[in-house]
Amino acid sequence: MTRLYSVGIGVGTQNGKEEWLEVFYPKPLLNPSEALVNAVAKASGYHKGNQALPLASEQLKALANELEGAGESEYAALVSTMQGSKRPLVATLLASNEAPTSVPEAYLKLQLLSHRLVKPHETNLTGIFGVLPNVAWTNEGAIDPTELVQRQLQARLEGRVLSVDCVDKFPKMTNYVVPSGVRIAHTARVRLGAHLGEGTTIMHEGFVNFNAGTVGKSMIEGRISAGVIVGEGSDLGGGCSTMGTLSGGGNLIISIGKECLIGANGGVGIPLGDRCTIEAGLYITAGTKLALLDDQNNVVEHCKARDLAGKSDLLFRRNSLTGTVECKTNRSAIALNEELHAHN
Amino acid sequence: MTRLYSVGIGVGTQNGKEEWLEVFYPKPLLNPSEALVNAVAKASGYHKGNQALPLASEQLKALANELEGAGESEYAALVSTMQGSKRPLVATLLASNEAPTSVPEAYLKLQLLSHRLVKPHETNLTGIFGVLPNVAWTNEGAIDPTELVQRQLQARLEGRVLSVDCVDKFPKMTNYVVPSGVRIAHTARVRLGAHLGEGTTIMHEGFVNFNAGTVGKSMIEGRISAGVIVGEGSDLGGGCSTMGTLSGGGNLIISIGKECLIGANGGVGIPLGDRCTIEAGLYITAGTKLALLDDQNNVVEHCKARDLAGKSDLLFRRNSLTGTVECKTNRSAIALNEELHAHN
Amino acid sequence: MTRLYSVGIGVGTQNGKEEWLEVFYPKPLLNPSEALVNAVAKASGYHKGNQALPLASEQLKALANELEGAGESEYAALVSTMQGSKRPLVATLLASNEAPTSVPEAYLKLQLLSHRLVKPHETNLTGIFGVLPNVAWTNEGAIDPTELVQRQLQARLEGRVLSVDCVDKFPKMTNYVVPSGVRIAHTARVRLGAHLGEGTTIMHEGFVNFNAGTVGKSMIEGRISAGVIVGEGSDLGGGCSTMGTLSGGGNLIISIGKECLIGANGGVGIPLGDRCTIEAGLYITAGTKLALLDDQNNVVEHCKARDLAGKSDLLFRRNSLTGTVECKTNRSAIALNEELHAHN
Repeated sequence: MTRLYSVGIGVGTQNGKEEWLEVFYPKPLLNPSEALVNAVAKASGYHKGNQALPLASEQLKALANELEGAGESEYAALVSTMQGSKRPLVATLLASNEAPTSVPEAYLKLQLLSHRLVKPHETNLTGIFGVLPNVAWTNEGAIDPTELVQRQLQARLEGRVLSVDCVDKFPKMTNYVVPSGVRIAHTARVRLGAHLGEGTTIMHEGFVNFNAGTVGKSMIEGRISAGVIVGEGSDLGGGCSTMGTLSGGGNLIISIGKECLIGANGGVGIPLGDRCTIEAGLYITAGTKLALLDDQNNVVEHCKARDLAGKSDLLFRRNSLTGTVECKTNRSAIALNEELHAHN
Repeated sequence: MTRLYSVGIGVGTQNGKEEWLEVFYPKPLLNPSEALVNAVAKASGYHKGNQALPLASEQLKALANELEGAGESEYAALVSTMQGSKRPLVATLLASNEAPTSVPEAYLKLQLLSHRLVKPHETNLTGIFGVLPNVAWTNEGAIDPTELVQRQLQARLEGRVLSVDCVDKFPKMTNYVVPSGVRIAHTARVRLGAHLGEGTTIMHEGFVNFNAGTVGKSMIEGRISAGVIVGEGSDLGGGCSTMGTLSGGGNLIISIGKECLIGANGGVGIPLGDRCTIEAGLYITAGTKLALLDDQNNVVEHCKARDLAGKSDLLFRRNSLTGTVECKTNRSAIALNEELHAHN
Repeated sequence: MTRLYSVGIGVGTQNGKEEWLEVFYPKPLLNPSEALVNAVAKASGYHKGNQALPLASEQLKALANELEGAGESEYAALVSTMQGSKRPLVATLLASNEAPTSVPEAYLKLQLLSHRLVKPHETNLTGIFGVLPNVAWTNEGAIDPTELVQRQLQARLEGRVLSVDCVDKFPKMTNYVVPSGVRIAHTARVRLGAHLGEGTTIMHEGFVNFNAGTVGKSMIEGRISAGVIVGEGSDLGGGCSTMGTLSGGGNLIISIGKECLIGANGGVGIPLGDRCTIEAGLYITAGTKLALLDDQNNVVEHCKARDLAGKSDLLFRRNSLTGTVECKTNRSAIALNEELHAHN
């Protein structure tokens, strides 16, 4: 068996038609060892391609033995634990990083992200909205929305609360994994598929979409839209906004470099380089016309924010006396001209 | 029996004084059939007016029979299911759309809204804040705040968590109904009494108050205040604000027409017509003075935003070089003058 | 025994190493009576200083008797109730208001705040981030993050949901106390250690950090950062921001006086006096240059917002035609000059 892209043994939820609603992988693997792949393939009946294969309890026992024999004791112990499951089990094996075609595949890829095994944009999620079903996430687990009405009434009559906390294609990340070294003050605002670097704190007003997140230490009190990556040491102020490719950012993929600060209630619609600041309350879109200032505070020229995409050491502010949006730099007028017009 | 405005058979929660805290109606009805009304009236002892009548278990059996006899099999089956209830039951019959005078009446009206049986402003909610009690909404159900302390301590000592998720007159909608064809990423931000059109997605940063909402397909990442209606195809960007009549909007009822876009972190304090855009980060209040631009980008005149209330095809932006708030139109100067001064 | 600063009898959670994760005090006391202190000291073996002493069940019985004998019947009854606890108990006695040195001490101080026994800044919380452990707050109680993985898997296999609602050093306030006369639409956004005045409503978009809050009646739809106090009758509009000392406000402690209004999506980085208004969408930082207008709308001078720190009867707005941030006053030019330059 050649090396695979990813393998996961999961426990999940199915609706009344035995369709998968979601799958939890306690230990998703990226590029697992050949020994492990061979063991899983043998026990699950896997041959090739990207497949999600149901596992019966007796297969699990065989799998644990195979893993033990292959020297994968830790994974063998995990699989042994799973033998007592009251929920359906699945072995998902991905030969290659192709777009997901089933719920177990999509959930494995989202969990690769949140386990920090891949970074945003590194795993192919094309078409994931079409693959994932809408689910009612409740205190009694994942429920198919079409089966919800009866469950809600029954719970009520029995004096229980069936709390529907989310109705969405994506669940909250922390019910699948809490990566090490993070704080998340309000977990409902971090979707499965978010990538949080060690040392990241997401405050109550913070938000992280799937296929997006931080790579290192960050204080996040604003919104990280789908596809946006925030660099080491950068902070997002309370209520600030990053434009996502799903919601109006167009083709321009937004990213924030290292040691940037976006002020409270501000926003950004261009990629930023390192050590950039946007003042509180200012929203910079790609089309914002602004005055570019040199290190002496002289206006060098007027340009659009998109012309400054990816550049470092910029301070964006609105002059509070003239109303002009300004971009203050630490470079001379000559250096700025060269930088901006190098490819003209 | 004449036709009634609304009928609901509900199961609810009472405090230690047997006062209603809330009522769940699995299937609220607007203008129900005479046959159904007669059956409910007979079983519950209803004569006239707007009434909430307690139902004992034996009445429920009689009611199921009456409904079956009246050809209302579906409702009969529902009522049969409710016979096993461990919680108090109620029959609420509203002869007319008057202001609610009791908890069961108010909850019936809020559920008419969230079940899409009426649109915002169509049911009379006058004085609802005075009718609804403040409730602690917990994982163990609705609790009177005055009875909470003892319950919290008892749960703690027994090693359970009594989680108090909301202390408010309005519960979250999804514990009563999840309308078809919606996604709600974080349900704590949609109050019972919200009206969500088929195809609406409420993202994590979205919010919908009662007696407010969408009528069709919308992507809502901002806040829909009490009383505000958002038209088909309109989107609210992340963190944007609509002024509600409860919170400073005054008498002007805010509504958003079709195919509008309010940008992220923007805001609006006037009603918008169709196809209007407010750029990200810009807040338009009724008193905002602005430069009105014709289709050639010439300034036609200066006016206040309230003068443009309800008009279509407007783009609001702040000129990022001059700081002037501008309203760009697709009409000629002559057409604009006629439109604005038609009633002078 | 001299008078103590504070006493609490609590029930809490420990991790597998018997380290405290959190402590719930049903009735924390500030400056308790000598009789009560003597009873608690005798039963718990307290001698002096700030201490957290574990209580066994038999000590609790003795304590209840001591309290009864000391005429503290109400507290005796409370302690009697706690005898049946399945969770570890603790007596925390603070001789003085020093910085907390243990989890039980820190939790007692946070609960003094939320019980309105002290106001923000009145109890010493120096170094509290170092004292508090990071905790996974779940529907099955507080869990040490290092023990979470096994618990999550086990719950899954058994068909239960272990919902991780928060991963943070601070839990939500309402699982400890719901002060009288408040509404909190979404409790996940109010940290333990918040101080909410009677008559305060925290809407869904509102947020209150620890050591911060309101002192009276307020409608809070914006964010109260750590250390910020909002005066009687002041309202915070939807999504508005107050700068905290933890997040960029520097040394300047932000406070909001009486009857102020910060408009929706606005923000403030200076202390405000009474009856001040910041218009919707405007962010005032300490460094914002602005035009100061007298009662006749004439520009008196240009200054920075920090020069107006703590002054009353100010209206901050951005002139929507010129882009200039203005501060409109109700005073004459002469009075303003005297006020601003009194200490020059």
